[in-house]
Amino acid sequence: MLNQQMAALGNNRSTIRELFEYGNQRAAVVGRENVFDFSIGNPNVPAPDAVREAILAEAAGDPVALHGYTSAQGAADVRKTLADDLNRRFGTDYTGDSLYLTAGAAAALSCAFKAIACPGDEFVVLAPYFPEYLMFIERGAGAKAVIVPPSITDFQIDFDALEQALNEHTKAVVINSPNNPSGAVYSEQTIKQLAALLCEKEKQYGHPIYLVSDEPYREIVYDGVNVPFVPNYYDDTIVCYSYSKSLSLPGERIGYVLVPPQAADSADLYAAVCGAGRALGYVCAPSMFQRVTARCAGQTSDISIYQTNRDLLYDGLTGMGYSCVKPAGAFYLFPQTLEPDDRAFCERAKKYDLLVVPGADFGAPGHMRISYCVQTETIRRALPLFAELAKEYGKG
Amino acid sequence: MLNQQMAALGNNRSTIRELFEYGNQRAAVVGRENVFDFSIGNPNVPAPDAVREAILAEAAGDPVALHGYTSAQGAADVRKTLADDLNRRFGTDYTGDSLYLTAGAAAALSCAFKAIACPGDEFVVLAPYFPEYLMFIERGAGAKAVIVPPSITDFQIDFDALEQALNEHTKAVVINSPNNPSGAVYSEQTIKQLAALLCEKEKQYGHPIYLVSDEPYREIVYDGVNVPFVPNYYDDTIVCYSYSKSLSLPGERIGYVLVPPQAADSADLYAAVCGAGRALGYVCAPSMFQRVTARCAGQTSDISIYQTNRDLLYDGLTGMGYSCVKPAGAFYLFPQTLEPDDRAFCERAKKYDLLVVPGADFGAPGHMRISYCVQTETIRRALPLFAELAKEYGKG
Repeated sequence: MLNQQMAALGNNRSTIRELFEYGNQRAAVVGRENVFDFSIGNPNVPAPDAVREAILAEAAGDPVALHGYTSAQGAADVRKTLADDLNRRFGTDYTGDSLYLTAGAAAALSCAFKAIACPGDEFVVLAPYFPEYLMFIERGAGAKAVIVPPSITDFQIDFDALEQALNEHTKAVVINSPNNPSGAVYSEQTIKQLAALLCEKEKQYGHPIYLVSDEPYREIVYDGVNVPFVPNYYDDTIVCYSYSKSLSLPGERIGYVLVPPQAADSADLYAAVCGAGRALGYVCAPSMFQRVTARCAGQTSDISIYQTNRDLLYDGLTGMGYSCVKPAGAFYLFPQTLEPDDRAFCERAKKYDLLVVPGADFGAPGHMRISYCVQTETIRRALPLFAELAKEYGKG
Repeated sequence: MLNQQMAALGNNRSTIRELFEYGNQRAAVVGRENVFDFSIGNPNVPAPDAVREAILAEAAGDPVALHGYTSAQGAADVRKTLADDLNRRFGTDYTGDSLYLTAGAAAALSCAFKAIACPGDEFVVLAPYFPEYLMFIERGAGAKAVIVPPSITDFQIDFDALEQALNEHTKAVVINSPNNPSGAVYSEQTIKQLAALLCEKEKQYGHPIYLVSDEPYREIVYDGVNVPFVPNYYDDTIVCYSYSKSLSLPGERIGYVLVPPQAADSADLYAAVCGAGRALGYVCAPSMFQRVTARCAGQTSDISIYQTNRDLLYDGLTGMGYSCVKPAGAFYLFPQTLEPDDRAFCERAKKYDLLVVPGADFGAPGHMRISYCVQTETIRRALPLFAELAKEYGKG
């Protein structure tokens, strides 16, 4: 009598959430410090001081204005501030009317997908991908997800495979750079080639193919790597953003959909995003954190801690014989597992209380995702355990 | 190429939102104090001081814990505190595992509806109703909404009409008491009769009929009126709650779904609510306001201000010849319009910068909704204008 798909989604938590809960249970048994939970992408670097200052400043104001409904698309002054910040950084000329504030990237993606999905539509997802995409596309928007296998040598795009996946039913291609789980940042060359391919296919099929760019890790990059701003390369881009990672506010659920005026049917597309938000029950993004993010525009948490972690973990694991594409962004390492069956490998890792996520969950079997948004000390203490695990496979 | 239903939803704002935006435009022309905006249910009574104190206390803590992801169903300690508060007030024995925290009542309803909706299902909605119900049911959950006409003499339930609306496809009945827009509070007699009817129909059709009780106004009642706690009368109840009104936090998006253990298939139902939350893109309810509401459990904003407003407006309007069922709760008056065409009447009211919402939007033509969550002074100054409007119809 219930919706069995929903019951199944609720009963079968994602592997990441399962591991996270398992870690909490193990912590109760062996002590929190002895569980090496690399499962979840919950930033461990605190929000910058500016966030607390913004909260205190807002809390001192009129509570009716602060906690009241905003317009469904977000407070006009907040949207203007965030648009100005984008313009300053990326040379664009957006107004606040290009932004629809959301309860984080998950809401942004859900609204964007539902805004454009029509019966029979296909959404192309590039592996490795954030697994919840498939749910938002299939269960949320009622469209079909088509998966393109990964280019495991560099985690850029396998363009031959992508081209095979495109057809007249393709409504959108979903990208995520810096990438969860690989940490790869698409190069300007990759984005240009992608834009050229999609332009060609738009002409061939005679309709827009939207490029949904999910970029919560936009600012989490290392060694000064450049993250191309996708709408500057391809008009029919929809950006989904979240402050979860850049400001370490994942629980607060604050982000946006950007519908650039250059995108096809821009005004109707923006309206459809608003309409999808209504249909999904999003009344407005949380009002206080709308204002907090505006006050913190352009700031980030201390990224250098993640870089320290990345270097320590990457150097440590590759030194013991793990094979890994060096990530340029996000806070994940995505090495190959030491046996082809990544689920078996990750189960074996649990013996050492090392909690890592099988790559198969991200459409890239034979890998594991290690979230290094943890205390540096945790990585230091985990490395000998990764070494012991490697020894089981004759490595190190 | 877009989803045209979503574009239409975005382009055609609700009448309430239209009036709200119109009011903002008029305010720029004639001054805010000369626009009598009774359109939107945005609480004007500030959040209690406890909210600010809770924000400051939380902001002084560890930002990683405060702003981090919680479990998808909400932080365990917050859920326990809120369950304990319900137990204390209603003699129930819920644990935190009966609660799924949400981004407000709209999210709660969206998750509840999607959790139980199967193809071909019907959801019975009693007029007058909050208009977004129809969207959450039809556009969000893909089910059919069946509307029962109002009992305009008292805004309790027309049980003959309800019985006619029930059939083997009925999955749920949606109620809202204290009611938006009528302000009616269902009596214990009404709830008992409803429970008896639904029990009988469950037996007749051989499957559960859920009673979705949307109760964001539960604490906003006057003259000591009793609001029966629905799960204590009917096992297959799902409660959707929001702190938007009771704590004056509508922009913050915080509320819950309560799945009582007595409800049919309770464990699977709870799982399906969680699954629906996942599918709709809700990752967790905003983390800081989860904690703030726990700290404020059992408190409310100063309801006496609404009572003052109700009395002033009710006495004033009925004294000029408007006909109105006296509301016992919420912060809306729902008088009959002075001509049968409520839209024409509300348009005419705009001449006086009186912004009221046509009853037809709530499934009760021939009425108007007046939100009295405004400054008392606004009501005082608006009454002569309502009198002038009445004179146009030969009243007063």
